[in-house]
Amino acid sequence: MIERVTVVGAGLVGQGWAIAFARAGVPVTVHDVTDLDRIRENIARSVQGLAAEGLCEDPQGLLGRLSFEADLGKAVRDADYIQESVFERIETKRAISLEIDRAMRPDAIVGSSTSGFPGSSFTAECSHRNRFLVVHPVNPPHLIPLVEIVPAPWIDEDIPQTVRRFMEAIGQSPINLSREIDGFVLNRLQGALLDEAFALLGEGYATAEDIDKAVRDGLGFRWAFMGPFETIDLNAPEGLKDYAERLAPMYARFAEQRKPDRRWTAEAIETAHWQRRELLASESLRTRQEWRDRMLARMKAFKSQNKL
Amino acid sequence: MIERVTVVGAGLVGQGWAIAFARAGVPVTVHDVTDLDRIRENIARSVQGLAAEGLCEDPQGLLGRLSFEADLGKAVRDADYIQESVFERIETKRAISLEIDRAMRPDAIVGSSTSGFPGSSFTAECSHRNRFLVVHPVNPPHLIPLVEIVPAPWIDEDIPQTVRRFMEAIGQSPINLSREIDGFVLNRLQGALLDEAFALLGEGYATAEDIDKAVRDGLGFRWAFMGPFETIDLNAPEGLKDYAERLAPMYARFAEQRKPDRRWTAEAIETAHWQRRELLASESLRTRQEWRDRMLARMKAFKSQNKL
Repeated sequence: MIERVTVVGAGLVGQGWAIAFARAGVPVTVHDVTDLDRIRENIARSVQGLAAEGLCEDPQGLLGRLSFEADLGKAVRDADYIQESVFERIETKRAISLEIDRAMRPDAIVGSSTSGFPGSSFTAECSHRNRFLVVHPVNPPHLIPLVEIVPAPWIDEDIPQTVRRFMEAIGQSPINLSREIDGFVLNRLQGALLDEAFALLGEGYATAEDIDKAVRDGLGFRWAFMGPFETIDLNAPEGLKDYAERLAPMYARFAEQRKPDRRWTAEAIETAHWQRRELLASESLRTRQEWRDRMLARMKAFKSQNKL
Repeated sequence: MIERVTVVGAGLVGQGWAIAFARAGVPVTVHDVTDLDRIRENIARSVQGLAAEGLCEDPQGLLGRLSFEADLGKAVRDADYIQESVFERIETKRAISLEIDRAMRPDAIVGSSTSGFPGSSFTAECSHRNRFLVVHPVNPPHLIPLVEIVPAPWIDEDIPQTVRRFMEAIGQSPINLSREIDGFVLNRLQGALLDEAFALLGEGYATAEDIDKAVRDGLGFRWAFMGPFETIDLNAPEGLKDYAERLAPMYARFAEQRKPDRRWTAEAIETAHWQRRELLASESLRTRQEWRDRMLARMKAFKSQNKL
């Protein structure tokens, strides 16, 4: 049973986690080495934004479940679950994992928010390494529910399912990977689509704006509530296999046409960047990020109203 | 100026087009070789569904703008724009294009809904081939706004922009390709992501359900209103180029790890199909398709309320 949670590292990701846990009624201890008052203020502002979008009925109650602790040992010693979200550098991940390892209860579970490193690359020397795993959110976790749970080879067998149930209980959308793989599922899927997008742009077939529209007003329309397999399953009279029989040869042809070197060329990156700057000046990036987060909140509300 | 439209071929795609045109106030002639009364009834039912989701204020007015004509020559002779949506077979496309060619006004424009064939492969012998192009919707076009406009090499220069403006005017979301490419933009992007999804499933990293969740509750959350380039542009302090400098090496690594033979294996297709059937029995496919179309209508309303 996970009843007390500690968040280690309270940048944007850690702050989002703290909100997601506390919103679900869980008491959360927030630890960071920088100014905890500023972190508390940032969290309060985000919670205000959630409330404005109808996604948090009791902002004061939520904030009341947060406590702040500058001492790592004190912060983690009573926690059932520790979510680590420190800076994404392998040495930093390794050092903080060892520090947590020394202070944690032996039966606690430690999830790392790393988006890039397999857990085995930074938890191998922990004495409780069987309690560590990757629990990768999408930023910000209080607005985007997906969580990737990735076990290292030495994980205690029951932990991935325990974490999945806990994430479901707090309203996130967890998925389980059977074993480690570079990039997990989400970033590999994103990478595959981005590679094709950069290729089409680089070869001059369409603008960055039009490629974005193809996703935003086409593919994303369905994927936002179905995912790729359900989409094709519903797109042929007899379901997915029927779809594959009709269209696998077409997709195989696209794959054959792809150049083996699929790196994003410097030229395509330049083109994409400057086409974006024509649509959105650098000075406006921050305002647009705030817009994005408001729209994510609305999308979350929309999906939840429609049980999507 | 496009003022009168004819839809040639009124299966699901053609019916959706007829609704999209008439909804925007355009008089539409619908031609098909099968039972036009049944087609009229099907359209009326879809329009009722739209009205129920608040996406059509005047269903009777919309239906009143439709007329039905069994004779192809009569159907197309006065049209400014002809949207052809007959069965997806190259011989059928070639034959109907020649028939339209003989009956159309020389200054009319003919858009084909083909999802798979470049226009040049079936319009080469038309005497007005300079007036033919691909105008590919996503099914159903009255619910999903994306339209891909793809010129053949012999197109009259102004036509792609004329069609783009017309599609914008009726509330669709058009994109322009500079030249022909197999699969256009949308299906190439979809294919790239599906290839990775089938690979991850086939190698046992995650279930079809969890891969769908990664898109539905992760990537699709953003892509439904931003597209892939805007997403990464807003995901680093200095925009897209900054993002690429940080993460291009990671995505290049994923690309290198991909097996050169990216075809969907028979085994992965079987696995995906039967995992889907555990989530949704074959008998329920049709009900779920109806649910999908209701949710697409709601997504359309949600996006339009939020100017997304």
